[in-house]
Amino acid sequence: MKIFFATSFSSKIDSEGKVLPEFRASIEKLLSRYEAQGHEVFCAVRAENWRIAAQDPVMALKLDLQHIKKADKFVALLDEQVSAGVQLEIGYALALGKEITLLAVLDAKLGWTNQALMKLTNVQYETV
Amino acid sequence: MKIFFATSFSSKIDSEGKVLPEFRASIEKLLSRYEAQGHEVFCAVRAENWRIAAQDPVMALKLDLQHIKKADKFVALLDEQVSAGVQLEIGYALALGKEITLLAVLDAKLGWTNQALMKLTNVQYETV
Repeated sequence: MKIFFATSFSSKIDSEGKVLPEFRASIEKLLSRYEAQGHEVFCAVRAENWRIAAQDPVMALKLDLQHIKKADKFVALLDEQVSAGVQLEIGYALALGKEITLLAVLDAKLGWTNQALMKLTNVQYETV
Repeated sequence: MKIFFATSFSSKIDSEGKVLPEFRASIEKLLSRYEAQGHEVFCAVRAENWRIAAQDPVMALKLDLQHIKKADKFVALLDEQVSAGVQLEIGYALALGKEITLLAVLDAKLGWTNQALMKLTNVQYETV
């Protein structure tokens, strides 16, 4: 199964734009879990080699949306700090009728929208 | 034309859950502008009579998504504080190929995602 894995990383980088090692390790662990099950996973921050993209933001956004279209399943890692990009991608996946899994750390305080979202029929919620 | 007007109001309410008068007036002004042009506008906060809904959040979310589906045009009022709900709805409208207008106050500092979004072909940007 093709999986699109959405996560925000703009607040998880060092002064040189490189993703913080601890955050990278936590994402790699999650991606490995899916890949060990035989799934093919696209994750933008990994595809961009764990740095804030030098890539044109418009091209990067379009590429993400294309990958969501092609995916069978959409997984988003939620954070208490709302991500404009992750939320947009969730809405995009939702409209396309994708199977959706929302991941959040145990006890994360999620807002009204994401709490409602978890209760939709094609949305699963898991703590990590 | 049917317009869906998305705005966050969870941070614009008083202690009783009622929308602050100044914010309400600013939204009503924007809605009137579209209605004066003959458009039919759905705006959740107005439909909920300018209070945080007593309505079940899941039903409210589903209702919003249904209204986006039926709309010809999707308008979102952006704020520097990212709204999980508005972003989700933008993504939903985008996947459905709706004509999208993003509104923001002049000089609002918008993040990476919304700046990229403005440059997509079916997305217009206007300051209010």
